[in-house]
Amino acid sequence: MKTLIERAKEGKITREMHHVSECETMDAEKLRTSIASGLIVIPKNSRREIKKVIGIGRGMRVKVNANIGSSPDAASLKEEIKKMNVAVDAGADTLMDLSIGGDIRSIRKMILKKCPVPLGTVPIYQAAVQCVSGGGKIVEMNPDHIFSVIEEQAREGVDFMTVHCGVTKESLEKLKEQGRLMGIVSRGGSFLASWITHNKKENPLYEQYDRLLEIAKKYDVTLSLGDGLRPGCIADANDKAQLKETEILGDLTKRAWETGVQIMVEGPGHVPLHKIKENMEFQKRVCHGAPYYVLGPLVTDIAPGYDHITSAIGGAIAAWNGADFLCYVTPSEHLGLPTAADVREGVIASRIAAHAADIAKGVAGAEKWDHELSGHRLRRDWKKQIEFSIDPEKAKKYRDRNKPKQKDVCTMCGEYCAMKQMEEHVR
Amino acid sequence: MKTLIERAKEGKITREMHHVSECETMDAEKLRTSIASGLIVIPKNSRREIKKVIGIGRGMRVKVNANIGSSPDAASLKEEIKKMNVAVDAGADTLMDLSIGGDIRSIRKMILKKCPVPLGTVPIYQAAVQCVSGGGKIVEMNPDHIFSVIEEQAREGVDFMTVHCGVTKESLEKLKEQGRLMGIVSRGGSFLASWITHNKKENPLYEQYDRLLEIAKKYDVTLSLGDGLRPGCIADANDKAQLKETEILGDLTKRAWETGVQIMVEGPGHVPLHKIKENMEFQKRVCHGAPYYVLGPLVTDIAPGYDHITSAIGGAIAAWNGADFLCYVTPSEHLGLPTAADVREGVIASRIAAHAADIAKGVAGAEKWDHELSGHRLRRDWKKQIEFSIDPEKAKKYRDRNKPKQKDVCTMCGEYCAMKQMEEHVR
Repeated sequence: MKTLIERAKEGKITREMHHVSECETMDAEKLRTSIASGLIVIPKNSRREIKKVIGIGRGMRVKVNANIGSSPDAASLKEEIKKMNVAVDAGADTLMDLSIGGDIRSIRKMILKKCPVPLGTVPIYQAAVQCVSGGGKIVEMNPDHIFSVIEEQAREGVDFMTVHCGVTKESLEKLKEQGRLMGIVSRGGSFLASWITHNKKENPLYEQYDRLLEIAKKYDVTLSLGDGLRPGCIADANDKAQLKETEILGDLTKRAWETGVQIMVEGPGHVPLHKIKENMEFQKRVCHGAPYYVLGPLVTDIAPGYDHITSAIGGAIAAWNGADFLCYVTPSEHLGLPTAADVREGVIASRIAAHAADIAKGVAGAEKWDHELSGHRLRRDWKKQIEFSIDPEKAKKYRDRNKPKQKDVCTMCGEYCAMKQMEEHVR
Repeated sequence: MKTLIERAKEGKITREMHHVSECETMDAEKLRTSIASGLIVIPKNSRREIKKVIGIGRGMRVKVNANIGSSPDAASLKEEIKKMNVAVDAGADTLMDLSIGGDIRSIRKMILKKCPVPLGTVPIYQAAVQCVSGGGKIVEMNPDHIFSVIEEQAREGVDFMTVHCGVTKESLEKLKEQGRLMGIVSRGGSFLASWITHNKKENPLYEQYDRLLEIAKKYDVTLSLGDGLRPGCIADANDKAQLKETEILGDLTKRAWETGVQIMVEGPGHVPLHKIKENMEFQKRVCHGAPYYVLGPLVTDIAPGYDHITSAIGGAIAAWNGADFLCYVTPSEHLGLPTAADVREGVIASRIAAHAADIAKGVAGAEKWDHELSGHRLRRDWKKQIEFSIDPEKAKKYRDRNKPKQKDVCTMCGEYCAMKQMEEHVR
């Protein structure tokens, strides 16, 4: 069966393309050519049905991913299903199951079964965990085993996969040469860097990239080229190692396109305000316009407990300057595995950043939402204001906490409401 | 007694200037000339002692203000004192008492007595509330009464005052001419617009500006020229009315400087990402470099319940592009009077924005904090990581919620911690 990119190249507008074209009010033919040239991806495994098919890339609304998944210290299928539901309910466009604890296969299968949005994974996690559970070490992972895990997950229907193909002998050399405050903070990146260093061999995901492309093509899995060298602190932002890795990912992007495989490229991480734009522009240039999927970026390192906010700041600026896809960060980042409540906060913060960027970029229909809510605010129509809020449940909670004496105002100003004042005396 | 600006002009480096110069690692002579020319203010009433004297303006660390104060629907002295303590504890650089409910004089006096940071007010609130309590209407406020309230508050020691001098017949005409989705959303702005419209007279704070300057000079009160026409939704951002008002405030800035009165200029409000920079640059140009004090700005209207986040995004970009002073916004904004817990969230979110901008602008010492925390993170020194966090209490809460089996990692990755992996196999 042909991949979406192959069908787009043949001039075919598929069901998925029609759907995305309608959701985004983008001309279907324009969407098709953008998919054909790799500027837009529709992550969807050919074996899986997804309720909410989405497009990611140039001209699309900025999308938001929520990471869920167990860890060795907190492995509960029930809890992960709860997080999945909370994330989808809060408006996440995609999910990634990053489980590394408990029965990760069962967790993934259950999520795949129930998840209405595209689902991503990082197969190297399963490869590492299986190796360790078998009494081995991560550095002893067998390349064939890694590929068998990738194929297993593709066969099951995973829609997109993070593969850290850019952690290579060359990029690690660059890292060593320049030095870094934090080294590698990407989990998958550290597994592969350890493997490469220990075995004195090249990263199998890089060396056998064609094998990877073959599997991706077979199931139409969208590859998300991982930023294994993403900076873990602002001191390391936009350094030579990260840029070198991005260049490598740019080359791999071209090879994927030639094969008919959909590609996204992943990016940072921790980046101060003034270095975000240059990072976005660099990726777009060296990766030939491939969709950019960033984690944050966090604009400062000092706010554990509030990293959904440091990320929303960076994410808004990143998306405004070219990032197409924001991976959320929860308030629990750097401190522990998030709870379902953290997941909700993270998704909403990231959606705010994405929407703010959509407005700035002039994405069709983005501002309309704001104008409608503000109209209801002006009329002091509280029911509608809450209904149009990004999180009606939370807005209602705040509103109901403390009822004003006059029903049409709020307890901030009471009878001294500016809008009421204007209505009575000026308009 | 001479004002700070007059003493600076005479070449005198006062105790306050020495203190600020040390805190900011700015050469005292440079600070003095910046104060003399109005580019930096040190808000401090000559009648009041402040524990934490601060400078606001060019080259200074970006400062954060927290608004507290009662409303007709929630008037408790105890609650406001609690909010004051929470705000100061969370690191607010200044406070404003915006009380409009209950015994506002007693609340202000108690806050003035206990507040260790500069305190601001909006005197028109007291004038309006007294008028209404006396059975009158806001539009019946007597100009002499307004000035007597200003003098009363100045005599009591208020350090800075918001005065909406730019809501004039001319700027209101501009507003009417162009139209607006939300009209006026500034409380003080709406009081004065109503008064002007009803009485068909000019704004007394504009018409009798010299009288205002005289009071400010007598007590060395820093005037904060209010943005009465600030946009209340992104549709109204940077419109002609707001720009006209800013121009008027620019003229008033010059007159204040000539008289020896310290001045700040206030700004928006709701502004989408792509219009923030132009607003900052416009204010700096037409207000001759006077310190810019902004509320937010909120980059989208759709997130009541999360407006500390929409503001942190806008505040970071604003401060990076020239805003000197950020007024916090709490999660309760648009929905009701904030609680002490909301105050804490608001202050921290705003401090994150300010710090992110300090890093981007290269403010002396800003990055050092990040580098130190990241060093502790790399070493997995949890005690130090928490100690160096912007809100150690919250970081500790997240950390303690779910203890990892291995003490040196967190429950996100457990034994699969990237930094631990790197330490064992790569470094």
